[in-house]
Amino acid sequence: MTKRGYFFEDFYVGMELRHAIPRTLSEGDQATYIALTGDRHPLYCSRPFAEALGFRRERVHDLLVFHTVFGRTVADISLNAVANLGYAKVRFLSPVYPGDTLRALSQVVGTKENKSRRHGIVWVHTEGRNQHDEVVLEFFRWVMVNKRSTEPPKEPSIPDMPEQVDARELPSPPKSMLPVEAMAETTGSRKRASDFEVGDVIDHVDAMTIEEAEHAMATRLYQNTARVHFDAHSMRTSRFGKRLMYGGHVISVAHALSFNGLENALCILGWNSGAHANPTFAGDTLFAQSEVRDVRAYPDNSSYAALRTRLVVTKNQRPGTDPSVQLPTAAQPRAYGKNVVLDLDYWQLVPSG
Amino acid sequence: MTKRGYFFEDFYVGMELRHAIPRTLSEGDQATYIALTGDRHPLYCSRPFAEALGFRRERVHDLLVFHTVFGRTVADISLNAVANLGYAKVRFLSPVYPGDTLRALSQVVGTKENKSRRHGIVWVHTEGRNQHDEVVLEFFRWVMVNKRSTEPPKEPSIPDMPEQVDARELPSPPKSMLPVEAMAETTGSRKRASDFEVGDVIDHVDAMTIEEAEHAMATRLYQNTARVHFDAHSMRTSRFGKRLMYGGHVISVAHALSFNGLENALCILGWNSGAHANPTFAGDTLFAQSEVRDVRAYPDNSSYAALRTRLVVTKNQRPGTDPSVQLPTAAQPRAYGKNVVLDLDYWQLVPSG
Amino acid sequence: MTKRGYFFEDFYVGMELRHAIPRTLSEGDQATYIALTGDRHPLYCSRPFAEALGFRRERVHDLLVFHTVFGRTVADISLNAVANLGYAKVRFLSPVYPGDTLRALSQVVGTKENKSRRHGIVWVHTEGRNQHDEVVLEFFRWVMVNKRSTEPPKEPSIPDMPEQVDARELPSPPKSMLPVEAMAETTGSRKRASDFEVGDVIDHVDAMTIEEAEHAMATRLYQNTARVHFDAHSMRTSRFGKRLMYGGHVISVAHALSFNGLENALCILGWNSGAHANPTFAGDTLFAQSEVRDVRAYPDNSSYAALRTRLVVTKNQRPGTDPSVQLPTAAQPRAYGKNVVLDLDYWQLVPSG
Repeated sequence: MTKRGYFFEDFYVGMELRHAIPRTLSEGDQATYIALTGDRHPLYCSRPFAEALGFRRERVHDLLVFHTVFGRTVADISLNAVANLGYAKVRFLSPVYPGDTLRALSQVVGTKENKSRRHGIVWVHTEGRNQHDEVVLEFFRWVMVNKRSTEPPKEPSIPDMPEQVDARELPSPPKSMLPVEAMAETTGSRKRASDFEVGDVIDHVDAMTIEEAEHAMATRLYQNTARVHFDAHSMRTSRFGKRLMYGGHVISVAHALSFNGLENALCILGWNSGAHANPTFAGDTLFAQSEVRDVRAYPDNSSYAALRTRLVVTKNQRPGTDPSVQLPTAAQPRAYGKNVVLDLDYWQLVPSG
Repeated sequence: MTKRGYFFEDFYVGMELRHAIPRTLSEGDQATYIALTGDRHPLYCSRPFAEALGFRRERVHDLLVFHTVFGRTVADISLNAVANLGYAKVRFLSPVYPGDTLRALSQVVGTKENKSRRHGIVWVHTEGRNQHDEVVLEFFRWVMVNKRSTEPPKEPSIPDMPEQVDARELPSPPKSMLPVEAMAETTGSRKRASDFEVGDVIDHVDAMTIEEAEHAMATRLYQNTARVHFDAHSMRTSRFGKRLMYGGHVISVAHALSFNGLENALCILGWNSGAHANPTFAGDTLFAQSEVRDVRAYPDNSSYAALRTRLVVTKNQRPGTDPSVQLPTAAQPRAYGKNVVLDLDYWQLVPSG
Repeated sequence: MTKRGYFFEDFYVGMELRHAIPRTLSEGDQATYIALTGDRHPLYCSRPFAEALGFRRERVHDLLVFHTVFGRTVADISLNAVANLGYAKVRFLSPVYPGDTLRALSQVVGTKENKSRRHGIVWVHTEGRNQHDEVVLEFFRWVMVNKRSTEPPKEPSIPDMPEQVDARELPSPPKSMLPVEAMAETTGSRKRASDFEVGDVIDHVDAMTIEEAEHAMATRLYQNTARVHFDAHSMRTSRFGKRLMYGGHVISVAHALSFNGLENALCILGWNSGAHANPTFAGDTLFAQSEVRDVRAYPDNSSYAALRTRLVVTKNQRPGTDPSVQLPTAAQPRAYGKNVVLDLDYWQLVPSG
C-alpha cells in the first residue's frame, strides 16, 4: 500500500503525471534556504531592492522554486532512479513570491532501454504552476531508472533535447531599473553587461563545507524523498557506503558562492544544460568557478541583458589547481575529473550598458 | 537563582501550574519543522487545499502544536525526570494557524513513590490554549521524577488513565470536503475509510537517519530545555554516554514517514496512548509501520471518518525483519525488543466512503 | 574579479564604507534563530507580551539584529581579519520587527600597525539602519587585519574607545508596563531591579553543545562570509586544524542560556565591552555565568531599570569549578584561562521596583 515509485516498464511516451502535494512557499522556507546556502543575492532578501525593480516584494529564490517543483516529481519519476543524467531548457518564466503555492505536472517524452536490460532512460518535460495556474518554471530532465524485470525491451523513442535555451525564449526582464550607483549600493558592484567578455573566468574565492544535517535539511525542505539522501542505514551497503548529497543542493551552494564576483547577476533566467559529474558527500568542501559564454541584449528592453555562464563546481580542490579537476573537451565530452561535481550552463539577468 | 525544576516531593494532587513563555508560532516555525522532518501532509503545507476543506489557511502541524505545548511544561514538570512513561487521552481540539500564540497550563492528578525511594511517578493533565483562551490541545502524561531526598513517602494517589479516546470525544471534522478526484490530485491517493480493514499492516517504505544537529534544532525550536538533549559534556558520563533524542522528534519523523501509505490521513485527532520503548540517538535510522486498529464514522458528518492506527517505530532495523523487533503481547505488555523506539496508538481524520 | 576583502593598507581614518546587501528580516529568520539557539526571551517569541509592553508585535531578537548588521560588514572589514579584538559602545537604539530591512554603514576611526609589520589593528564605527533610515544599532569594533605587504607603516592613529555605555546613553524604555503578576505569568519570574545586588553571581544551570551544522547555519543566516567558519578544507591546514565557530553565535547561545536565572531581562540595551577570549569549535559545550555589575533607574520612567551584568562563557567546563576557568584580574587584565571563550559586559532592560 506504500508507494515504491514507477519502474522503467511503467513509463511510456505521452504518459501524463500530475504530481501530488502542492506546496505553499513562505518566508520561513526562504530563511531556511539562506541558512543552508548562505545565499546573498539581494532580489531574494532585500524587499526595497525587489520593489525598486518593480517586483511586488522579495522573490522566492529561483533555485528554491526549482527544487520545490523537482521535489514534487521525485515520488513518481525518480524514486527508482539510478542517476539524474541531465537537464535541458530549464526556464524560469514568472516570479514566485512568499505565499504562492506550486504544483508540478510532467509528461514523458522519451524512453530507451539500456543494453544491460537492467535500466532504461526516461525523458520527461515538467512544468511548475502557481495557484493561478501560471507556468512559473519548465524543464526537461532525463534519468536512468531501474527495470522491474528483464522483460524484452520496448521500442526506443529518443527525443531531441534542446541544446540550449535560445535567448529569444528567455523570460522578459523587469520593467524598472535602478541607476548604476543605486544598484551598486545594494549589490556592491558596478559591473554591467559590457564588463563581461566571452572567455572571462571568475574564480569565486569562497568555499563551503556541507554537513550531513545540512543537505538533509535542504532536501527535506523541498519534500524530496529519494532514499539515497536520507537512509544512512541502507546506504551503508550501497556502492558508496554512505548517503549522497542531493545534486540540487550542490547547485544552490555553488550559486551562492558565485555571488562574490557576479554580484549583479540578479536572478536566474534559464539553464541550457546541466550535469552532475560526480557524487558529493557530507564533509565535502565545494568550490565554484564561472566562465562567461555569452552576453545578449534584450530586443525591447535596453536596461537589462542576459549573461550566459558555465558554472563548474569542484569538491575538496579549487578549480584549475590540479589535473584531477579535468573538464570535458570536444573530443571527450563526458571526461570529467573525479573532483568535478557539477557543470551547469545557465543564463542570468544583468544590467545592460 | 537559576531554576533547577521541581522534584518529586514538590508535586501534590491538585497542584496547578501556569507554564511560562507563551509562544507565537509562525510560518518560519512551520518551515523549520518541515526541514527537520520532511513532513508532506498537505493540510500543513498547501494553502489552497486547507482552504478547500474550510480552514482559514494551512494549519500549524498538529505535532508542532503538541511539541510547543509540551516544551512549555518541561521546565516545571520534567527537568528532573528520569523517563517519560506514557501519554493518554491526547486530543487536538481546535486548529492552530501561523500567528497564533500558545500557552500551557497543567494540573497534577496523581503521585506515587517508587519502591527505591529515589524516584516517583507524577501524573499531570496539560492544556494548550491559544490567544483567545480556547483549548487547542489537552493530554495526560506521566513521568518518573527524581526525589530530592529519601524522605518518607507521601500517600500514593494513582489516577485512572483513560485507556483510549472514545471516538465520541474526538474533535469535529471540517465542514467542507473535496470530491475524491480533487483530493487525490493533492494527496496522491484515492484511499477512503472503506479501504482500511482492521488488522491491515502498512510497512512505510521510507527511512530517515537523524543527526545530532537535527534533533537538537527541533527540540530548541520547541524551547524544550531538557538537558539530556543538549549537554553532550554531561551526558558523556551518563549511562548512555551521549545525548538522547527528544522522543517527540521520533514521533514527528515517524508521522512524516507514514505519509507514504496513509496519504489521506489528513490530520491528527487524538492519541489513545503512546510509549517511548527505547531511547534514540543521533545517527539512528528510523523505520515506521502502521497497523489499522479501528475505523469509525462520525455521527453527524458523512464526509469524514476517524482512522485508528498503531504506529510502531524501529531503529536501524525494518519492522518485521528480525526477532529484535519484538512487540509486546497480552502476556508481556511491556516486552519491547531493543530496536523498538515508539509504540503510538492514535486517531487520524480520513475521508469516508 | 572576485572580492578578496581589504587589507590593512587599504584602511585610513575617515574612510566611509556603505556595506552591500540590505537584508529584510522575517518570521522565518526568527524561527531559525530560535532553532539554533533555543532562545526563550518572550519579547521575541510572544506576540501578546510584546503588544502588552507597547510594541507593535514580537521584536526581532536584538542579537539577530546585531549579527545581521555585523554580517554585512564582514566582506569589507574582516574578510582578512586575524582576530576580532573587541567591541565598545554597542547600543540597540530602536526595535526591529519582522519585515524591516537592515543595512550597514561604517567609518574607519583608527589604524595602528603591529610591530611584526604583518598585521595592523583597524577601529571602525558601524551603524545599522532600517528602511526608514533610522539607526537601530551602533557599535565600535576593532579587528586585527593582515597586511598585503611589509610596506613601511602609516602613522598610527589610536582612538579612545568608550569604556562603557553611560546609562544616560541607553535607549528609552517601552512606554507600557505589565503588573508584576502578569509579567511573571509570561516570564516565569517576579524578579525586579531591587532583587539584584552588585556582586550577585548567577550560575546558569543549563549547557549547550554546538555542532558544525548549527554554527554554520547560524552564520550563513547572517550572510557572514568569513571563510574560517565555512571552509573546512582550507582550515585543515590552519593552526587550529578545523573550522572556528563565529564568536557571535557563542554570544547568542550564552544569552539564551542566561534566560534561566534572568527571566526578566527583557531585551538588550547595549554592551559596554566584549572579548572573545578563546576560540570555540564544533562539539564544544557552552556554559554561562552572570555577575551583576550595576542597576540603574531611568530618570523619566519609573517602570523600568537598566541591569548591567558580566556574562562569562566557558567551554567544556562549568565556570567556577576549575583553575583552567581563570578570569582576568586588575593586575592581569587579559589573562583568560583556556576554557573561557567570552567575556561580555552588557546592559539589559528589567522591571523596576
